Amino acid sequence: MWAVIMAGGSGTRFWPLSRRLKPKQFLDITGNEPMIVETYKRISDLIKDEHICIILGKEHLEEAKKLFEGKAVQIIAEPFGRNTAPCIALGALYAMHKGVNEPISFLPADHYIANKNAFLESLKIAEKVATSGGIVTLGIVPVRPETGYGYIRRDKNLTKVDGKEVYKVREFVEKPDLETAQKYLQSGEYYWNAGIFVATSETIIKETKKCLPELYEALINLKDKFEEKDFEHVLRKAYEKAPNISFDYGIMEKTDADVYVIPTECGWSDVGSWSSIYELKRKDWDRENNLVEGEALLIDCKGNFISGKGSRLIACLGIKDILVVDTPDAILVADLKRAQDVRKVVERLKEEKKEKYL
Amino acid sequence: MWAVIMAGGSGTRFWPLSRRLKPKQFLDITGNEPMIVETYKRISDLIKDEHICIILGKEHLEEAKKLFEGKAVQIIAEPFGRNTAPCIALGALYAMHKGVNEPISFLPADHYIANKNAFLESLKIAEKVATSGGIVTLGIVPVRPETGYGYIRRDKNLTKVDGKEVYKVREFVEKPDLETAQKYLQSGEYYWNAGIFVATSETIIKETKKCLPELYEALINLKDKFEEKDFEHVLRKAYEKAPNISFDYGIMEKTDADVYVIPTECGWSDVGSWSSIYELKRKDWDRENNLVEGEALLIDCKGNFISGKGSRLIACLGIKDILVVDTPDAILVADLKRAQDVRKVVERLKEEKKEKYL
Repeated sequence: MWAVIMAGGSGTRFWPLSRRLKPKQFLDITGNEPMIVETYKRISDLIKDEHICIILGKEHLEEAKKLFEGKAVQIIAEPFGRNTAPCIALGALYAMHKGVNEPISFLPADHYIANKNAFLESLKIAEKVATSGGIVTLGIVPVRPETGYGYIRRDKNLTKVDGKEVYKVREFVEKPDLETAQKYLQSGEYYWNAGIFVATSETIIKETKKCLPELYEALINLKDKFEEKDFEHVLRKAYEKAPNISFDYGIMEKTDADVYVIPTECGWSDVGSWSSIYELKRKDWDRENNLVEGEALLIDCKGNFISGKGSRLIACLGIKDILVVDTPDAILVADLKRAQDVRKVVERLKEEKKEKYL
Repeated sequence: MWAVIMAGGSGTRFWPLSRRLKPKQFLDITGNEPMIVETYKRISDLIKDEHICIILGKEHLEEAKKLFEGKAVQIIAEPFGRNTAPCIALGALYAMHKGVNEPISFLPADHYIANKNAFLESLKIAEKVATSGGIVTLGIVPVRPETGYGYIRRDKNLTKVDGKEVYKVREFVEKPDLETAQKYLQSGEYYWNAGIFVATSETIIKETKKCLPELYEALINLKDKFEEKDFEHVLRKAYEKAPNISFDYGIMEKTDADVYVIPTECGWSDVGSWSSIYELKRKDWDRENNLVEGEALLIDCKGNFISGKGSRLIACLGIKDILVVDTPDAILVADLKRAQDVRKVVERLKEEKKEKYL
């Protein structure tokens, strides 16, 4: 199998730790290493370095080169972000260029997976299914009525591959309201859409041609250009013509190809905000449900997330459900329940032209 | 008139801004200059530099020398703190040594006074009263049923000096509970004890001899030693024998000398905690009652005090009644209503031997 690690995100929800030059996938917020490295390591038992292609933004190329120094992984820099459909098409074209016919896993670089083995098991099944055509998705078995994710509804007919369940997909659905999410959870027919896809390059390009002909036209000529000297220039020209659209919206919701879902229980999280990290690290909470990283001193504090990986002491007194993030040049103090709104801080910084903090 | 500025405090309630080497009186938390400088400037229309003596802790001598460079003020360093009775006796002995008979104002270096003129008016009256003996206190007319201050109860008989009220003191009372404080406020007979005293050196030494003979014995020989080479050594020896006791408790509550109180309305505060500063600076509050010092960005925030005099940006999101104090090596995030307990943080730092933050 091949893998394309999609690392083009520019996440603003982890400000002040995440910045323009260091988005979420380059932060070690879920473990000891940058998420992009954890994503790579997670699959490296299954997939050889030579078969891994990392696609990211031009501004992060140097950082990635440092992280993957000495590894045989391929790194391709997009001139600018155009969402996932162009990124996935680009990865597929690169595989085609390399003459690859095996299925490719398309993996977001900034997701957390607690149970690596369960995840890899699903990928292996996905590989088998995808070999005979169609697009396979991993469907994360929901554990709560989450309203922040899109869902995948399965068809009734069950197939088994190597003893594991595989379903045809009935439909992709948008983020539901709470009541709907509760119904989804009870029905057992819905999975979280983690944005993880497996398909051959041929399938991806065929479906791109059918569903997003404009994108196909923009990128198809790249196939023979990857080794050329002016590839960067050619890629920029191609991307300028490419529509900005997600793979889910542009392909998955429109395709008449066979689409499968493999129910997966692997402790997945898209790590969407500081409060996701707080929840993920429940085992590190103290008795009063505080999550403390770095040097801190807490008196009469409950349910706070104190992230101080800098060299400063953070002293807290009598606070509750507060998020504190300390970095060398900026501090965030927020209601932890408002963690989703951290991007508003970034928007305001942009409005106020405080570039140095972005 | 002479003045003794008492700057021996080691306040821990303004951590992390106040540290061992920079206690409250050396911070510019109430205005643009260190409180000790504001205390000096407040009286300098009335009292000549040559007549001002600053008494402080040895460890703060260098800092004070810098602040008062080129001024003719006298600075005396205590080898260690022994509360206000020894400090006041020391100041009186210094004045005696200089052959001074005029009254001396004993002024804490770390209080805030909004209305300088009203304060100086009271001092002038106090000077007149003290010239003929006795100890004069400024009694701050209470504006709320404060439970954090001691009170002075006046006698019924009113004297007028230059048209201003002067009363004999009936008693000094300890910090009351809320109900008692409310009665005090309603009665009109009680004033806040600001720890500001005016008396001649002769009176101070006489009363020290009567009420605290041990202190008198320990210090009396210093009178002729101020100019001597080994004064520092002699002072240390004397202080080692001096009891650790406040002037209020050791002298004022016991003396049978005449004690007067001059009702004073000068916008006084002892600036006892971060929340006092927040209240003092009400005019600087924004529309949502936030007090912001330094570079900050607030979204959906109410009633917070953000003190960031460092070079960092402090971004706040959805927080309420929170105190944030940023310094180069330590940050405090506290419930603003718990500001009195900031000293607990300092205690904990001591327990944990985190000396570098003290």
